Amino acid sequence: MSKKNQTVTRREFMQRSIVASASVGSSLAAGIAVASPPKDADFLTIDPWTKTQRQNFPNPDYGIPSSYEKLVTRLKYANGSRTPLQKLHGIITPSGLHFERHHGGIPEINPDLHRLVIHGLVDEPMIFTMDDIVRLPAVSQIHFLECSGNTFAELKKRTWATVQETHGLLSCCEWTGVRLSTLLDRCGVKPDARWVLAEGADSAVMTRSIPIDKAMNDVIVAYSQNGEMLRPEQGYPLRLFIPGFEGNMSVKWLRRLKLGTEPWQTREETSAYTDLGADGKALQFTFVMGVKSVITSPSAVMKLSKPGFYEISGIAWTGSGKIRRVEVSVDGGKSWEDAILEGPIMDRCLTRFRLPWQWNGDSATILSRATDSTGDVQPTLESVIKARSSNSYYHNNAIQPWLVASNGEVSNAR
Amino acid sequence: MSKKNQTVTRREFMQRSIVASASVGSSLAAGIAVASPPKDADFLTIDPWTKTQRQNFPNPDYGIPSSYEKLVTRLKYANGSRTPLQKLHGIITPSGLHFERHHGGIPEINPDLHRLVIHGLVDEPMIFTMDDIVRLPAVSQIHFLECSGNTFAELKKRTWATVQETHGLLSCCEWTGVRLSTLLDRCGVKPDARWVLAEGADSAVMTRSIPIDKAMNDVIVAYSQNGEMLRPEQGYPLRLFIPGFEGNMSVKWLRRLKLGTEPWQTREETSAYTDLGADGKALQFTFVMGVKSVITSPSAVMKLSKPGFYEISGIAWTGSGKIRRVEVSVDGGKSWEDAILEGPIMDRCLTRFRLPWQWNGDSATILSRATDSTGDVQPTLESVIKARSSNSYYHNNAIQPWLVASNGEVSNAR
Repeated sequence: MSKKNQTVTRREFMQRSIVASASVGSSLAAGIAVASPPKDADFLTIDPWTKTQRQNFPNPDYGIPSSYEKLVTRLKYANGSRTPLQKLHGIITPSGLHFERHHGGIPEINPDLHRLVIHGLVDEPMIFTMDDIVRLPAVSQIHFLECSGNTFAELKKRTWATVQETHGLLSCCEWTGVRLSTLLDRCGVKPDARWVLAEGADSAVMTRSIPIDKAMNDVIVAYSQNGEMLRPEQGYPLRLFIPGFEGNMSVKWLRRLKLGTEPWQTREETSAYTDLGADGKALQFTFVMGVKSVITSPSAVMKLSKPGFYEISGIAWTGSGKIRRVEVSVDGGKSWEDAILEGPIMDRCLTRFRLPWQWNGDSATILSRATDSTGDVQPTLESVIKARSSNSYYHNNAIQPWLVASNGEVSNAR
Repeated sequence: MSKKNQTVTRREFMQRSIVASASVGSSLAAGIAVASPPKDADFLTIDPWTKTQRQNFPNPDYGIPSSYEKLVTRLKYANGSRTPLQKLHGIITPSGLHFERHHGGIPEINPDLHRLVIHGLVDEPMIFTMDDIVRLPAVSQIHFLECSGNTFAELKKRTWATVQETHGLLSCCEWTGVRLSTLLDRCGVKPDARWVLAEGADSAVMTRSIPIDKAMNDVIVAYSQNGEMLRPEQGYPLRLFIPGFEGNMSVKWLRRLKLGTEPWQTREETSAYTDLGADGKALQFTFVMGVKSVITSPSAVMKLSKPGFYEISGIAWTGSGKIRRVEVSVDGGKSWEDAILEGPIMDRCLTRFRLPWQWNGDSATILSRATDSTGDVQPTLESVIKARSSNSYYHNNAIQPWLVASNGEVSNAR
């Protein structure tokens, strides 16, 4: 009879007695005890790479990953690509691995020729160059961005395998730019302005309508991602960034903002990006991304080499504020335990959670369930499906189960 | 007579009256008011890039910066390269632009063959594979790393021009790995162990001694930088990361940790990385990086195109805790004003500071002065020099002045 699968408190883990008994007693834990470690001098010749004086600069002026990591890439699909979340650590997504979604390809914009026009219901229409914008007071914030179509296929049936496939339309970077309110204040917002139309300079002329309250609150007209200028596929040289709202509203290659009294009913907020309810009626606007989490390790299609200690680790996020709690179950949802949240817990930002786990070698279904600062709790798949029509597509924030089989293979247990 | 150069409170800036008077009255501020903005339909043909349907994927699986940003690179010198801080925003340094310092070139290590050995004064010497280490409880923290030689040449005379040259041996990333204390706890630290020798697998066999109290506190055995595995030049696949300590102690390509009773007196802590005092005696260990700041914009060799509004922006950091305050002077240090610190203010991490400034077109010397949570205040260059011998080299954390000339050209005013 194997022992019950159980999570391990951090304190228990730190008590060496537990670790040592696992390690020495049954060779289950990480690291191998050695009676006679190498002598100091042995180390001078132990590794082949130590024996060779290397060039200082085989690496370029702009560094790239090790050749051993060449399989850590975005995964392309028809109109975008997904982030390899199961291969990443912490909360920051490197810009080169940020997910993409294009509606008309990636324009190649000369920043010296790019202009942002603000017009409509303003006291004074204005045109801004990139130089104008970079001179203004800036903010830098670390925020997640999630496509409303993230995890969509899993609503209907088990479709994908890895976290990159199921949840990879999600990334998290530091974004720098000017508050949209700073620009709107400069132009003077007329009292009857209730909505802002944002338009991209791509060939799809991507357009979305944004409520004025949100526009005047925390929206960023961003030119920088993770310290450097935006990547082309992220809207170079200028994009909107709307913290917590569905990704497509953060219009890339931003060239125009028009203020008006009503939403514009653009293609991307009528024929697309609307949610069908169970009653067959479409809810046009679902701006805010729901509270959500996913375990990134262990996750499909990893393989646990042997029973023993593993850290369960994942990410949680919400469009409504901060993550307050993440619970983890290793028994398919029968019992739950609070994971450790890694700080600082930031607003509309990924939060990394961790929980020590002693895997006994039996099959186990592992789940995570997030709660945010408004009290919203991540729903089960059943409850999400129940609230939607069968043609529903967007905003699937359901709990994601992974099955750890007794042979160590991990798979999607949706 | 021109108006006095003055900083602008954020509240003043937000009051459109001030901005409008600057903009409309004298065309000094950013953005141009237009009486007749383009009509909606005009925008469909206004930009050349809008007229062309683009490929969805001219960009690679692993994204790269825009071709318009190809001059934003590291700046190489004999044994390393510097980060272009004056071209970066926020606090995160992209991994491809993290500064480098090598003592024997960059080894190319196969992670499957890499081992970490812990031995010496431990109950149980152990060998860890990379798989062993990644399974253990992890932490992710955003920390700066600074070479103790950063800004060294400016101690003697004005030497360099840009922030990249004067301060570019400084970067800030999210680092993920196992606490060193977790590994040491697993091996069991003997009571008489006071120091830890860390050794790299590069051809220089870089070695440094670390006090046991620090080793058991916040040191990370790191495998990840900004979410992905370490870059080769940052120690792939494993490095030490010692928050707040001089950069060279965060030994890269880490393969060995040995516990002992005394420091090892290695080459890199005797013949190098020691500070000569004014009395001619060398201080062997100066582990902690002092409180320091630098204005990154405006900075040499930028050129302000015309008088008007500019945001003064920069970064501050300390090896002793958190940044508590940054003061800015626009009159060569005669008067100071508190800059706005951008949160969250994290431990041993860059903090971005900002201050609105109305430049009247007169020459102005701008400075920043940081204070940390221990009460340490960034010193003047005069006081740093006074405390050192003329052969002193490391740990120059002096206040950095930039001169904005009346023609808008910015230069190093050391």
